[in-house]
Amino acid sequence: MRNLEEILKEIIEESRKYTNFGNVATYIPELQKANKYDLAACVMDKDGNVYVSGDGEKKFTIQSVSKPIMLALALMDHGREKVFSKVRMEPSGDPFNSIMKLETSKPSLPYNPMINAGAIMITSLIKGKDHEEKLNRILAFFRKLSGNENLDINYDVYLSEKITGDRNRAMAYLLKSEGILEGDVEEVLDLYFKQCSIDATIKDLAKMGLNLAFDGIDIITNERLISEEVARIVKTFMVTCGMYDASGEFAINAGIPSKSGVGGGIMCTVPKKMGIGIYGPALDKKGNSIGGVKILEALSKKLNLSIF
Amino acid sequence: MRNLEEILKEIIEESRKYTNFGNVATYIPELQKANKYDLAACVMDKDGNVYVSGDGEKKFTIQSVSKPIMLALALMDHGREKVFSKVRMEPSGDPFNSIMKLETSKPSLPYNPMINAGAIMITSLIKGKDHEEKLNRILAFFRKLSGNENLDINYDVYLSEKITGDRNRAMAYLLKSEGILEGDVEEVLDLYFKQCSIDATIKDLAKMGLNLAFDGIDIITNERLISEEVARIVKTFMVTCGMYDASGEFAINAGIPSKSGVGGGIMCTVPKKMGIGIYGPALDKKGNSIGGVKILEALSKKLNLSIF
Amino acid sequence: MRNLEEILKEIIEESRKYTNFGNVATYIPELQKANKYDLAACVMDKDGNVYVSGDGEKKFTIQSVSKPIMLALALMDHGREKVFSKVRMEPSGDPFNSIMKLETSKPSLPYNPMINAGAIMITSLIKGKDHEEKLNRILAFFRKLSGNENLDINYDVYLSEKITGDRNRAMAYLLKSEGILEGDVEEVLDLYFKQCSIDATIKDLAKMGLNLAFDGIDIITNERLISEEVARIVKTFMVTCGMYDASGEFAINAGIPSKSGVGGGIMCTVPKKMGIGIYGPALDKKGNSIGGVKILEALSKKLNLSIF
Amino acid sequence: MRNLEEILKEIIEESRKYTNFGNVATYIPELQKANKYDLAACVMDKDGNVYVSGDGEKKFTIQSVSKPIMLALALMDHGREKVFSKVRMEPSGDPFNSIMKLETSKPSLPYNPMINAGAIMITSLIKGKDHEEKLNRILAFFRKLSGNENLDINYDVYLSEKITGDRNRAMAYLLKSEGILEGDVEEVLDLYFKQCSIDATIKDLAKMGLNLAFDGIDIITNERLISEEVARIVKTFMVTCGMYDASGEFAINAGIPSKSGVGGGIMCTVPKKMGIGIYGPALDKKGNSIGGVKILEALSKKLNLSIF
Repeated sequence: MRNLEEILKEIIEESRKYTNFGNVATYIPELQKANKYDLAACVMDKDGNVYVSGDGEKKFTIQSVSKPIMLALALMDHGREKVFSKVRMEPSGDPFNSIMKLETSKPSLPYNPMINAGAIMITSLIKGKDHEEKLNRILAFFRKLSGNENLDINYDVYLSEKITGDRNRAMAYLLKSEGILEGDVEEVLDLYFKQCSIDATIKDLAKMGLNLAFDGIDIITNERLISEEVARIVKTFMVTCGMYDASGEFAINAGIPSKSGVGGGIMCTVPKKMGIGIYGPALDKKGNSIGGVKILEALSKKLNLSIF
Repeated sequence: MRNLEEILKEIIEESRKYTNFGNVATYIPELQKANKYDLAACVMDKDGNVYVSGDGEKKFTIQSVSKPIMLALALMDHGREKVFSKVRMEPSGDPFNSIMKLETSKPSLPYNPMINAGAIMITSLIKGKDHEEKLNRILAFFRKLSGNENLDINYDVYLSEKITGDRNRAMAYLLKSEGILEGDVEEVLDLYFKQCSIDATIKDLAKMGLNLAFDGIDIITNERLISEEVARIVKTFMVTCGMYDASGEFAINAGIPSKSGVGGGIMCTVPKKMGIGIYGPALDKKGNSIGGVKILEALSKKLNLSIF
Repeated sequence: MRNLEEILKEIIEESRKYTNFGNVATYIPELQKANKYDLAACVMDKDGNVYVSGDGEKKFTIQSVSKPIMLALALMDHGREKVFSKVRMEPSGDPFNSIMKLETSKPSLPYNPMINAGAIMITSLIKGKDHEEKLNRILAFFRKLSGNENLDINYDVYLSEKITGDRNRAMAYLLKSEGILEGDVEEVLDLYFKQCSIDATIKDLAKMGLNLAFDGIDIITNERLISEEVARIVKTFMVTCGMYDASGEFAINAGIPSKSGVGGGIMCTVPKKMGIGIYGPALDKKGNSIGGVKILEALSKKLNLSIF
Repeated sequence: MRNLEEILKEIIEESRKYTNFGNVATYIPELQKANKYDLAACVMDKDGNVYVSGDGEKKFTIQSVSKPIMLALALMDHGREKVFSKVRMEPSGDPFNSIMKLETSKPSLPYNPMINAGAIMITSLIKGKDHEEKLNRILAFFRKLSGNENLDINYDVYLSEKITGDRNRAMAYLLKSEGILEGDVEEVLDLYFKQCSIDATIKDLAKMGLNLAFDGIDIITNERLISEEVARIVKTFMVTCGMYDASGEFAINAGIPSKSGVGGGIMCTVPKKMGIGIYGPALDKKGNSIGGVKILEALSKKLNLSIF
């Protein structure tokens, strides 16, 4: 389908002008090194065809894109009842790093696993006899889902996050003080900073999105990687909470289950059709790739991808 | 499909026990007269078949079920750009009658058209040269969508709402003071209380849901009642914000675009498949029909209706 | 004491330059007509001597300066137990027109009688068989306390407030919906807008302040106008909540029990020493007379007036 | 004045019945060991006479009573301009351990030095070349003000606080992430937990209160310990923010500049008259000694101690 590659190229060129109105993330110093005009997209379809436009080989850290994947792993480790006794299922209407609702709502459970407080909570649930085993299980899961055995942590970004992650520390200690988060805060955060610092390409994101699009089955190998129920839960969160406090608007404008990260990546899943990976480090005010959002809105319209 | 009727009946009997843990709405005195053990469901499929279980003829006021329909009318009156300059598109994470975010977020736009502040804003946008014309246009639209020419206002409930609607007044005056709501507050509220007081049956809700399920086309007459885009927008809000601040959880557990009202009604739309109407006046703490939610979770599981 | 007049004059000239950094109130259209460079002060001492600097005859509406006086009247009408079952005694840390804490704190009592929500509550408590009698009692009380029989309402300002008072309406309806405010909202607000629109001069404010300074006794006539306990309560609120959400800072910098209004007036009471009236319509961001605050800080330092 | 001792005794016996309605602090495990029925008071007058009723030798940790003293030290180290660029001067209306306003107000400065966030900020400002020197300066200051060379840290309580101080950690990291708090968070907290864990008797509190009552001068030795301005600032905060979010009510009912701590202590200062120390570990819901508040209300009424 040579056509799709051309469509992608056209849409990217159209969307690139918006990158000018965005900014690369500054609160993690290492992320500031990105080129704000970069923009790239990868579509992987149900036959395994891969369409790339822009620089598909460029690596970026996945940041919050890790959140739905980690949720899947926690659900596989504990089942939904345990997981959702520790984190709610509601969009919060507040920014991803907001701490306020942890104080105003009783019990002080994080509103959902896609905001930082909820994601840190999810990370604390991952099974493993020690830090190393937990980290290995996490990496193994990301590698399996992306089909990329070389996926690994970008240690420069990790260190940058660890040094500057005081707002995440504040949340974690608040959860700890409320008796919700168990275990050692610094160890949980170390794991969290590592999961956020996994280096990936748009192909990796597209592949993970494709696996979710087929309810957890790798359609090439026919291997089931995630149970159908877990895949469905993850996709639902990607719709209701995947694009921070712009999720509602994105659902209206694009209607594609997606999860963005402040590194500029977006992982998307079009049920029974395709996985999409996006890279564009210039962010809008809510923290989503400004060019990436434009690409997905245009692509959804062009190919009629909205689930609604 | 005699089978579906039996499934419905079984699920309703199973769900009825939960009505005991809910309560009928008390803040509108007239609504307290409902029988909390009532529970009924109606499915209308794409061939126009109607399956009813429970008392399908019982009337109840639609309350917040009116919100997505009014949104459709406002979008048809003004287009999305104008409408979404007056109300946001985000779930708020707060109860439906919360006033706080109107103060903490700038500009003070209501978070979405499914919470009271946003719905009052939407009502203020309906076109018409005077109150009577506006009301007539609203009633005509509900009648056309439900295929029920006899749909009308329950004036006892309307008066009850008008007398006790001070919290809605507070919101409306706050929106007025911020320069967002235009026109006379009491007149807008009068229209709002009337739209909430429309009397309907589960068949009416099922029919409206069916029309949304087919993107705004009445599949019996083949008439287009709502544009495809407007229908899509409405359905999206039903997913992200339709069940108050339990929308996220309902999306996980049922995955059916739905809108509930404190009168006990729920209008549901299963894309390309069916419309569903529910009645069960015993409410949970968030304001949703407690038995109705159970019915929809069970039905979704049984018939695989989740859009995710 | 010719000296005090010179001190006043000097301080006013020094303070006048700050008026440039303030702005006259704009949310009540009628108040915009004030001259932002106006600045005047009046001191009335325990021997009845009056020292005026600046234009002492200029009239302005007292606005929130009415709040402590109304609190005194309500306390005399009902006693402290009843009054403080309807309004708390705590500084709120929020702007005077904030609505948020009415939602977040249970029960939804206004935080104190010096913010709008609390002051409206207080107004609703004033005794009288009808609107006219209530208004007459209020006016009579202000006239007696100021020793000015001609004190009256500025009807242009009153109408301006009534037309634009939607934020106050929002608060009043919220209090009504919570079952805290009784009576007809519009009637209570009408009385509230009238009390805010009383026209006064700095001499009137100084005289009222002087009566509070001597625990409720008019030191000229030796008549007791307010009980000692009520006078003490009122002065305490003037310290903890009298200067909106700058009360803490003002207590540090000046330490004089004071109440400001957005009309530019400030009424001050220096226990056992003097009453002070200030007029300066240029306001700072918190709503206090910017030049007036400077005058009081300087005067307090010069004459050692801080109660701390 | 044998009389005052009798008055004290009578008031304490009258107030003791309220201890039954309070509870000892539970969030620091070590504090739970206190006897909730304990109640004691010490008055130190301007001639150095000491009146004690109840067990005057019982030791308790001063907890938040340390906050005004630490503020004095910080003001002496840096001057008011620097200090109040790091912490506001306003009552917050929220509980002492609230984190919300740090998020909703910009800049994210703590509202005042008497709530935990503000007090931690103040601790971070204390001068010293290393942790040891800072701690020694703090202890020396407390010893000088109390005239008790043996004042020292209760290490059991300190360790208990350190282990369970996660909510304070959350605040400190939030302040750090906003660029307000400088230095190492754990080190600042360590100092903070130590200052809170200083063991004292009611005589120590009364003596510190007496020094504040005479504007920073030790009336026995005639030595100036704190500048007049610093003493005035500290006393002002004790009025506006000294009794947590019950400060406004306490100002009305007692009118004595006071600072309470969750260890059950209250330090009070009656300008030009006396210092008072209270101990009563049963706390009310706001965190103040429930019997202690009753003692001070009664004593204020009896001896006419209100500053208002």
